[in-house]
Amino acid sequence: MNQTVEIAPIAESIKAFFSTRSYSNAIVIADNNTKKHCYPLIKESLPKHNLVVVKSGEEHKTLISCELIWGEMTKAELDRHAVVINIGGGVIGDMGGFCASVYKRGIDFIQIPTTLLSQVDASVGGKLGIDFQGFKNHLGVFKLPESVLIDPVFLKSLSERELRSGFAEIIKHCLIADGDKWEQLRTIDFERQNWADLIAHSVKIKKWVVDQDPTEKGLRKILNFGHTLGHAVETHFLSKPAGQKLLHGEAIAVGMIMEGYISRSRKMIDNELLDQMEEFIFATYGKVNIKPDDVEAIIQHTRQDKKNKGKEIRFSLLKGAGECAFDVVVTAAEMRKAIAYYMA
Amino acid sequence: MNQTVEIAPIAESIKAFFSTRSYSNAIVIADNNTKKHCYPLIKESLPKHNLVVVKSGEEHKTLISCELIWGEMTKAELDRHAVVINIGGGVIGDMGGFCASVYKRGIDFIQIPTTLLSQVDASVGGKLGIDFQGFKNHLGVFKLPESVLIDPVFLKSLSERELRSGFAEIIKHCLIADGDKWEQLRTIDFERQNWADLIAHSVKIKKWVVDQDPTEKGLRKILNFGHTLGHAVETHFLSKPAGQKLLHGEAIAVGMIMEGYISRSRKMIDNELLDQMEEFIFATYGKVNIKPDDVEAIIQHTRQDKKNKGKEIRFSLLKGAGECAFDVVVTAAEMRKAIAYYMA
Repeated sequence: MNQTVEIAPIAESIKAFFSTRSYSNAIVIADNNTKKHCYPLIKESLPKHNLVVVKSGEEHKTLISCELIWGEMTKAELDRHAVVINIGGGVIGDMGGFCASVYKRGIDFIQIPTTLLSQVDASVGGKLGIDFQGFKNHLGVFKLPESVLIDPVFLKSLSERELRSGFAEIIKHCLIADGDKWEQLRTIDFERQNWADLIAHSVKIKKWVVDQDPTEKGLRKILNFGHTLGHAVETHFLSKPAGQKLLHGEAIAVGMIMEGYISRSRKMIDNELLDQMEEFIFATYGKVNIKPDDVEAIIQHTRQDKKNKGKEIRFSLLKGAGECAFDVVVTAAEMRKAIAYYMA
Repeated sequence: MNQTVEIAPIAESIKAFFSTRSYSNAIVIADNNTKKHCYPLIKESLPKHNLVVVKSGEEHKTLISCELIWGEMTKAELDRHAVVINIGGGVIGDMGGFCASVYKRGIDFIQIPTTLLSQVDASVGGKLGIDFQGFKNHLGVFKLPESVLIDPVFLKSLSERELRSGFAEIIKHCLIADGDKWEQLRTIDFERQNWADLIAHSVKIKKWVVDQDPTEKGLRKILNFGHTLGHAVETHFLSKPAGQKLLHGEAIAVGMIMEGYISRSRKMIDNELLDQMEEFIFATYGKVNIKPDDVEAIIQHTRQDKKNKGKEIRFSLLKGAGECAFDVVVTAAEMRKAIAYYMA
């Protein structure tokens, strides 16, 4: 493990990467959006390649899209010395990386993350995968890309809502690993944050954690703070009408408050930190409308969480600003209280 | 890399394995045949488990079967601390291992190979995968099982034809790595071979090769002797009527003669060895009826071989009895001659 992450103007970092490698062939995977807004920024810098375009959105992070990608890779007669270039957000990076890692038992791939979320989170750490039967990242592998090429220029292609979604993982990184940065972050409005600085900070924290525990046997689980209930909320809202669906970071923002509440109930953090978290997260994200009817379905979804052992639902919980515990067994009753607290 | 392979009475080796491990849950993957003939021999020795049965045969080594398996794993709420137990031939081992390696980004699995072919080949070395769009093992990963438990008792469940198919890989192991064993092997009729001895010998050779080069960057390619044209013949015959389909080893037997011919054409081996190979292989397998119309389709299939680089078709060719070269570029004209030689 020791993943190369470049934060630099994209044309330069692409040229630098390919100047040191010799590939037999290349394929670019994009979605409808990144084909239009991001691919034109890199097209001229890339070696000869084919382009595969999949439909945008988490609902297309499925085996059906993989079959389309594998079919195009086969048609282009990609051999084991070819490279896959993923340009897009977490869906494209996770799915394109998974397709590359499984095609002919694995070929090289590079990530060009274009959303804030994927720049600060998904593109670093080698977690690849797709959803299955509605369960998030239920199928996948751990494998590192040959390189991650990050350029904040792509953020201009994002809506404010998408930018805000990515910001949730930045908040999480500060809360679990850097109390000083959290103190600084929470005093600045979302609109006035310095993205280049925050991306570099988040990548540094994520790499530090992942390098110590690439396959999530222990420490890496702290990156799941906010994600046990957050994922469950996100999965549950997939079945809601279009107008009510949540972006990943929006669900994680909900999850951080719920899991912050459990951390405080267990006296792992004090009232002050939970109050600060609520103030900042509600000011940034508002409040998601969770109805009493949703509660048991959300709890049910936590049973498929990948951190579980047997029937135990295991959480990563805060121990303070900048500190996080993992493998904490939490009961359904505690979850029920945490969801009720959020709703109240 | 350092794969555990046990050749012992199966009930004992199962008990020994599980006495050292603690799993949250278990699932057994079998096919129609092994459910009937092999599963009863191990059922009582296993920890509590669910059983998933898929349809028998290479034509079911597909994403559709994987979706069935992943669905059952999900329904059984298997977590990351569960284990998958594959009982069957190469199809079950390759596909069940692949399903385990991808489920929640990878859970443990063990192989209980029940055919001669899988005992001497597929179960050792961590090559997992499924077919895609008719291409063999087009999707997959490299990952080692926690253990391989081999017991010759399962060979009693095989037809003579299946036993003969597995024997082809034994012949190959001798030809590429042990000239003395080849000399011994070729003087004994198929019906009088000592399977327990040959299984142990093949496993030893395969492990020796794979331990040196787990992901097939170099030396491991020698295991592909007979497989470039052999796979192409096998794939081509998939589209033939049921009565003409070939088992894997039957196609590899064809491939070894064709690739032996190319080895001799290039003066890498002498006439005597090729003559010996032909005599023994034809005596054991007879001759497959390849028609002039089949030739170009077979050559076309070699373009998807995983050892290729760019447009080059790369072979592993004999350098003598017990010695093999790899990454040898062979032209379509040479392949045409080799197929014609086999047909003549």
